[in-house]
Amino acid sequence: MKAVVRRGPRLHVADVPEAVPQAGQVVAKTLACGICGSDLHAVHHLEHSIEMGLRSGAANTLDPARDLVLGHEFCAEILDYGPETDKRLKPGTQVVSTPFAFGPLGPELIGFSTRYRGAFAERLVLTEALLLPVPNGLAPEAAALTEPLAVGTHAVSVGDPGPRSVALVIGCGPIGLAVIVALKRRGVGPIIAADFSPTRRARAERLGADIVVDPAETSPHAAWSSFDVPATLAEMGLAQMAGRTLRDAIIFECVGVPGMLQSLMEGAPPGAHVVVVGACAEDDTILPVLAINKQLRFSFVFAYSPDEFAETLHALGEGEIDPEVFLTGKVSLDETAAAFERLASPGNDVKIVVQPWR
Amino acid sequence: MKAVVRRGPRLHVADVPEAVPQAGQVVAKTLACGICGSDLHAVHHLEHSIEMGLRSGAANTLDPARDLVLGHEFCAEILDYGPETDKRLKPGTQVVSTPFAFGPLGPELIGFSTRYRGAFAERLVLTEALLLPVPNGLAPEAAALTEPLAVGTHAVSVGDPGPRSVALVIGCGPIGLAVIVALKRRGVGPIIAADFSPTRRARAERLGADIVVDPAETSPHAAWSSFDVPATLAEMGLAQMAGRTLRDAIIFECVGVPGMLQSLMEGAPPGAHVVVVGACAEDDTILPVLAINKQLRFSFVFAYSPDEFAETLHALGEGEIDPEVFLTGKVSLDETAAAFERLASPGNDVKIVVQPWR
Ligand SMILES: [Zn+2]
Ligand SMILES: [Zn+2]
Repeated sequence: MKAVVRRGPRLHVADVPEAVPQAGQVVAKTLACGICGSDLHAVHHLEHSIEMGLRSGAANTLDPARDLVLGHEFCAEILDYGPETDKRLKPGTQVVSTPFAFGPLGPELIGFSTRYRGAFAERLVLTEALLLPVPNGLAPEAAALTEPLAVGTHAVSVGDPGPRSVALVIGCGPIGLAVIVALKRRGVGPIIAADFSPTRRARAERLGADIVVDPAETSPHAAWSSFDVPATLAEMGLAQMAGRTLRDAIIFECVGVPGMLQSLMEGAPPGAHVVVVGACAEDDTILPVLAINKQLRFSFVFAYSPDEFAETLHALGEGEIDPEVFLTGKVSLDETAAAFERLASPGNDVKIVVQPWR
Repeated sequence: MKAVVRRGPRLHVADVPEAVPQAGQVVAKTLACGICGSDLHAVHHLEHSIEMGLRSGAANTLDPARDLVLGHEFCAEILDYGPETDKRLKPGTQVVSTPFAFGPLGPELIGFSTRYRGAFAERLVLTEALLLPVPNGLAPEAAALTEPLAVGTHAVSVGDPGPRSVALVIGCGPIGLAVIVALKRRGVGPIIAADFSPTRRARAERLGADIVVDPAETSPHAAWSSFDVPATLAEMGLAQMAGRTLRDAIIFECVGVPGMLQSLMEGAPPGAHVVVVGACAEDDTILPVLAINKQLRFSFVFAYSPDEFAETLHALGEGEIDPEVFLTGKVSLDETAAAFERLASPGNDVKIVVQPWR
């Protein structure tokens, strides 16, 4: 079958061995699979990603010398069942699933494993027990947004904002926008969203951000005081002495480049909860005493729970999320390498979806 | 009256103007005041501390060019009341209080303020509303431990360990020992305590640490698996697949030097909550993606709430805490400068208490 393979730091369209389901697995036809920032990173920095995984105590399930099929944000159609399966869902059913599979070393990530190929291929093997049927005739491209949107659901769930929280989302790429979606669904407001790109700021507004900020012109931290969040320790002290009730700040870091954490330690209001969603894979410098003085919290988050994934799919099915803000391109396998190039400088793109049947 | 003043980066015994209470204040005789790591830091790095405060958004209440009287871990005896006071407690009552005072710029720290002198002096001015009488005839040196012990109470309260948490305390100086005290009082166990010094490890054991580790010989993270905390992501994956119930790790960082946070990002088990109590006032390098992969949380903590302070005093009064483990020296004002020198390399010391009446 046809697939896009990463071979060295390049993508090629190639013929790969057919997907064959083992015990507890199904084979499915890929209908749509989004291209993720981590896919872009893997093309050029796979060895580095593996090293980071090993240093995090993950089992390595990747041989970078072998062809790798990426793609973990998929919607697929069940074609056939392997042995020892319950066959709960009829062939032809459209499904999504968390991109996990169970290998001998523990859970593996589909699309980042030599054992479990990703969805930039005509067909893929999935674990039957994890399949969720796509509800309400939701389009496959929209259903494929479940995975990246679930990242936002999880970040907001860990952040756990309350009715008096004021939220700041830094970076309005796919992750920042997913966080805004999850905040709106939870009824959190006001939401301040910061991004250098006017196109991304416009998308943040379309999804419900109350204030958008261009960090080149205004500090994202300029608006705190106007929402009764004390911007500094000095302001907090004076507000307390005046008996003013205060609101709390929750900040979602969705950029993931060196310098972001330190800029938050400098700029965040006292007591702020910073949820770090953007993964900075380079050395970064911070001055911890600032975080001590302000009693900041940093929650580093990754992925989502199965419940958060299912709940996000449900919200898409109920029409609570507008997929159109996210879907900025649809490409075939032959066009996938070019789409990766396009996303390397994502001027107007959020999510490009690969449709291998095209 | 006689006091120890910081003048330039040196301590001198000097005659300073008498302490005169203003509206809402009392004048009190200092009975005992512990020397804190932040006092040592202030002697040599006062300008740096001020800069860190300003960068944290605190109002600066210190003029480093002027004489400064340090001392914020005090027990004192009420001598007289200023105007507009309620006189709830009789003169002669022994009291402690959070080292706060209310200046025009907001709350100020007694002992780190040009306006409110600290307790390395014969007498000091305190805010009447904050005074707590020392209960049950507790000795003044023991009552003076309320402040540093409350730091541990607060750290554990923010860490919020549950019945299935396993705790690791890194660094068994005054802060680490205060954390161990608070963990024991909360019934958390097992407690693993790590320190390079055998004397400090012995103290940690005396306060109830279940396992003590010399990091020069064994990694503090070596024991996780034996308590059913998965040490790595790979172990967690396999444990989950085997249906093993897992315990969670809570780590108290009580050292505060560069490299500690990164060593925790490398060594901490997945999902660990790191409570950062040690204040690193220098640039520090971290690799955030490791914290993302493991979904770590970092809570940076400072000081304590008034309730935590009062609760700690109560526990001391009830005999729930053994003050003798902490009290390793008692000195006069004349001996204070030498005690600071001694604490600069704290071989056998935990807390040296200044008794200005000596
Ligand atoms: Zn992704
Ligand atoms: Zn102190």
